[in-house]
Amino acid sequence: MKKLIVGQSGGPTSVINASLAGVYYEAKKKGFDKVYGMVNGIEGLLDDHIIDLDDYFKDKNNLELLKRTPSSFLETCRFKLGSFKDHEDTYEKVFKILDKHSIDSFIYIGGNDSMDTVESLSDYAKLKNKKQNFIGVPKTIDNDLPITDHCPGFGSACKYIATTLREVIQDNNCYGSTKPTVAIVEIMGRHAGWLTSAASLAKDETGEGVDAIYLPEIPFNLDTFVVETRKLLEKKSSIVIAVSEGIKTEDDQFICELTDSNLLVDSFGHKELSGCAEILCKTLKKELGVKTRAITLSTLQRAAAHLSSKTDLDEAFNCGKKGADLAFAGDSGKMVAMNRISNKPYKIKYEVFDDIHKIANIEKKIPIEWIDVDNNYVKKELIDYLRPLIQGEVKQIYKDGIPQHISLKK
Amino acid sequence: MKKLIVGQSGGPTSVINASLAGVYYEAKKKGFDKVYGMVNGIEGLLDDHIIDLDDYFKDKNNLELLKRTPSSFLETCRFKLGSFKDHEDTYEKVFKILDKHSIDSFIYIGGNDSMDTVESLSDYAKLKNKKQNFIGVPKTIDNDLPITDHCPGFGSACKYIATTLREVIQDNNCYGSTKPTVAIVEIMGRHAGWLTSAASLAKDETGEGVDAIYLPEIPFNLDTFVVETRKLLEKKSSIVIAVSEGIKTEDDQFICELTDSNLLVDSFGHKELSGCAEILCKTLKKELGVKTRAITLSTLQRAAAHLSSKTDLDEAFNCGKKGADLAFAGDSGKMVAMNRISNKPYKIKYEVFDDIHKIANIEKKIPIEWIDVDNNYVKKELIDYLRPLIQGEVKQIYKDGIPQHISLKK
Repeated sequence: MKKLIVGQSGGPTSVINASLAGVYYEAKKKGFDKVYGMVNGIEGLLDDHIIDLDDYFKDKNNLELLKRTPSSFLETCRFKLGSFKDHEDTYEKVFKILDKHSIDSFIYIGGNDSMDTVESLSDYAKLKNKKQNFIGVPKTIDNDLPITDHCPGFGSACKYIATTLREVIQDNNCYGSTKPTVAIVEIMGRHAGWLTSAASLAKDETGEGVDAIYLPEIPFNLDTFVVETRKLLEKKSSIVIAVSEGIKTEDDQFICELTDSNLLVDSFGHKELSGCAEILCKTLKKELGVKTRAITLSTLQRAAAHLSSKTDLDEAFNCGKKGADLAFAGDSGKMVAMNRISNKPYKIKYEVFDDIHKIANIEKKIPIEWIDVDNNYVKKELIDYLRPLIQGEVKQIYKDGIPQHISLKK
Repeated sequence: MKKLIVGQSGGPTSVINASLAGVYYEAKKKGFDKVYGMVNGIEGLLDDHIIDLDDYFKDKNNLELLKRTPSSFLETCRFKLGSFKDHEDTYEKVFKILDKHSIDSFIYIGGNDSMDTVESLSDYAKLKNKKQNFIGVPKTIDNDLPITDHCPGFGSACKYIATTLREVIQDNNCYGSTKPTVAIVEIMGRHAGWLTSAASLAKDETGEGVDAIYLPEIPFNLDTFVVETRKLLEKKSSIVIAVSEGIKTEDDQFICELTDSNLLVDSFGHKELSGCAEILCKTLKKELGVKTRAITLSTLQRAAAHLSSKTDLDEAFNCGKKGADLAFAGDSGKMVAMNRISNKPYKIKYEVFDDIHKIANIEKKIPIEWIDVDNNYVKKELIDYLRPLIQGEVKQIYKDGIPQHISLKK
């Protein structure tokens, strides 16, 4: 009797459940007799909150629904194990619960912090001669994991951003030259601009796309921004600008935390954090007297499974499968990674990354040479990198006019 | 040689271009020799800004693209003609330009204000024995036009809202019981709650949907809201609430303009208008100490053509066709309307509404008996009314991973 347990951790994505589906599918195929899910990641495991995935996914239709369900089916957590020297009791508790259920393998689907958990548990198991092995499957919309070419979850978020920006451009055009309007769209990514850069994919066949892209990799100056926007408005009346929520000044101050005249204070005098799109709109309205609109994509960009990229969904599924393969083979302390073999045609190889220490807690940013700093845009290299990731559409399963999902409650 | 001109006016929708496509398709079929478009509505017409739609839509593929292109292809305006007694020169200018191009018929696709324009021009033409006839084709995401059962544009916005809310609920669930979270989603509709009520369609098969719906038809009380949300949090940890941007207190004060402790002032002491979702989130955080997230659907709900309702798109097209029929028959001062014959099966009859005076400038609100005031929700009657409007999906024309559109620049 071989038994596997799988969990999800960190912020959810549109396709993190496709990875879960891949793990389940392959684990059963390879010969795991039981595939458990931990509810709320490692935090739930510590509470012995475990379910048998057969109860949900023996029915193949449910597995298809799972692939199309956004957010973390098994729910998630943000739990740091800490070093085993300081928290040996927590580590021991994890293994006690794994032993209680005779679990052999542990797969964690997540981002940087989750890989830290995989690394810590694997190291501890080796040190203490525990029988369990630990494998990481990457996910994050932010695409900030090193080593892997890109992360499952990123491509679908990019497709949502590109499609939505295309529609925002179209909408913003509606008054033509009769009413100059600036729309500022705020996109997730506190430290890395990968998601915001996907706004470049919104170009239509006439070449009309977003007019500027501001990334956190490049210091942001509010005065320069006003001058640059004024220049854009001299050429056309409908302007759409994509900004990362993480843009900051040369002094490393987030725009969304600005304390100058744009700062909002509540009636108690407390500093109020507003979105940076809101602050930029207020600034433009004040300086240029132009009509503005702030649009914040918020969690929609990570949850819009109805617009998943088929490429991304398939890759998420395959990464899950690869994770189950590694787990079955007894590997430990390793992460599934994607290696891009070629761009045209787009080809990915699923690989194993041995040294998970090099992944955990490191953030990958956009290479500066891929950014067109002078024009507040991105270079062809970055567009070529992004484009294959948003290809293909996933046929949704609609009922009563909305896409169907599956939840723990069934 | 019979000639028609068509224009679009007011805020755009996902399917207002499908109505334009319907007008063009039927006008050519019926026998109009020329179908012109006015760019920027009546405002552009006054500048003689006119295009020949054959240049764009003789190619049938382009007509299919047009149906799937959000926002107003012909661009729009918000222009009030005023009474002809005060502005006879403007009226005369309109007819001078129509005569110059030998135009027989005028179709305006729009909401309340646009019907006012149709009415005024038709009345003036009759009074002054002008040869032109004027027809209105309804559109508005707000669904606040009287007479017609519902408006083209509304169903697609509802489908977007229902799908997005479904995904937000899924996303908000991700921390399970480990971290109580309230998401507040702000939906358009300043005076009528039709759009916000579509949040009720986000229920999944387990019965999980949004936990409360606050509509502008019912006075809103901030203290009661806090109490009600606390009660919801006693039962479950993930709460999603839909609010209309137009909710207001018993004293008719918009929540988004509240001047109490939630008011934001900028550093000059100026009152800052924030979104009402933002204000409600701040209030809950302060009163209940709970994690909150404000999500504002903004223009996405009127521009998300990638998620159009097929029912809505077909109806928009058919309303356009019906408009061209009426124009060809020489009718004037009339609006196309939809009459719901039955709900199961859903059946619509396209009719002509003769007395456009009864349409212009009147806002239709949700009947109070369709609102479940005690439970901050909507009644079955309203859900039954909404459900058919979001049925069916429109196959998009994707290229390079994003839906294709057509624009004036081609």
